[in-house]
Amino acid sequence: MSEQSLDGRPVDGSEIGKRRPGRRPGAADTRGQILAAARETFAEKGFDKATIRGIARQAGVDPALVHHYFASKEGMFVAAMELPINPDEVIPMLLAGPREDIGERLTRYVLTMTSEAGARQPVLALVRTAMTNDRVVTMIREFISHAVLYRIAESLQIPPIRMEAAFAQLFGVVLMRYVVKLEPLASVEIEELVELLAPTIQRYLDVP
Amino acid sequence: MSEQSLDGRPVDGSEIGKRRPGRRPGAADTRGQILAAARETFAEKGFDKATIRGIARQAGVDPALVHHYFASKEGMFVAAMELPINPDEVIPMLLAGPREDIGERLTRYVLTMTSEAGARQPVLALVRTAMTNDRVVTMIREFISHAVLYRIAESLQIPPIRMEAAFAQLFGVVLMRYVVKLEPLASVEIEELVELLAPTIQRYLDVP
Repeated sequence: MSEQSLDGRPVDGSEIGKRRPGRRPGAADTRGQILAAARETFAEKGFDKATIRGIARQAGVDPALVHHYFASKEGMFVAAMELPINPDEVIPMLLAGPREDIGERLTRYVLTMTSEAGARQPVLALVRTAMTNDRVVTMIREFISHAVLYRIAESLQIPPIRMEAAFAQLFGVVLMRYVVKLEPLASVEIEELVELLAPTIQRYLDVP
Repeated sequence: MSEQSLDGRPVDGSEIGKRRPGRRPGAADTRGQILAAARETFAEKGFDKATIRGIARQAGVDPALVHHYFASKEGMFVAAMELPINPDEVIPMLLAGPREDIGERLTRYVLTMTSEAGARQPVLALVRTAMTNDRVVTMIREFISHAVLYRIAESLQIPPIRMEAAFAQLFGVVLMRYVVKLEPLASVEIEELVELLAPTIQRYLDVP
């Protein structure tokens, strides 16, 4: 059985290389071709120096076609690495509600997304590779910094280091819950963790 | 040049297998033999099921000799894995000062210890191995839980999950500072990080 994310998008890599029912083979192949080219280009150049034009060239397609499939370089990175969290979605979600609930909103979002094995697995695979591969570390650092953390920090008008501290807290919890499996952290309900962690995240995200 | 920790103890593994000046070769070899046996036993049985008696048998020495070199199973694990942080030192240090400064004390201790490459490197090596090896994960989980987190939580009379959240925050920061190298997190002074993180750790370690 192929695992699916909450929105029904396959998250276990089955969309790449395999044909999906109801989609023209040509279209599926082109999208897969672009994603394969994106993975190569991001790994080689890092996130900052990769361009949509360069990825289109690598895939042997027109840049307009890349734009047709992926709204942004960020969106393409998320799809290529099969990440469950897209900054193009997280940032509007964070800013949509009241500022005083932002810590709770972000904490619940991260814990809910990562509670799903199919969404978590590509993230952990990337972390595993990064632990022993400097190029992958560079690629991840650039993406997280420029596509996620700096953008959120700028939107919230807080110093980037506060967003990095919040990220370190949430990432550390996900690692301890799903890789190290510390108890009781690994077994408690999401809402108990939200209650414990949200005030921390809220403090970092409040204007100092 | 061999890196040394603040107290002059070699931390890059040079004490194992090599002879140190001023120490009788026989003594150094026995200690190294016990540590090698400890590493094998911990990897095979995990932390909880390993015993000083079993490690002595594996090393072919008398259990009394193991006690002579290492005060406790915890101390032996720390020496065998070359960890920079010994719970037998951290816990008294945490409890020694006023309760309202405990977050600051723990945060500064962890950041100072990990700021030294020689102390940090064995920890990161262990984390790298753990990411792809379930036995190593089990060994680390048991050690961290029973020798560090539960003991601190019990001393402070707080629920263990609060200590786990604090640990996740500090571990996440060390990972982002030294592996992912997020900026500005990787470059700021320790005291700036202490100011940012200590209130978080203090909140978790306060009696709820």
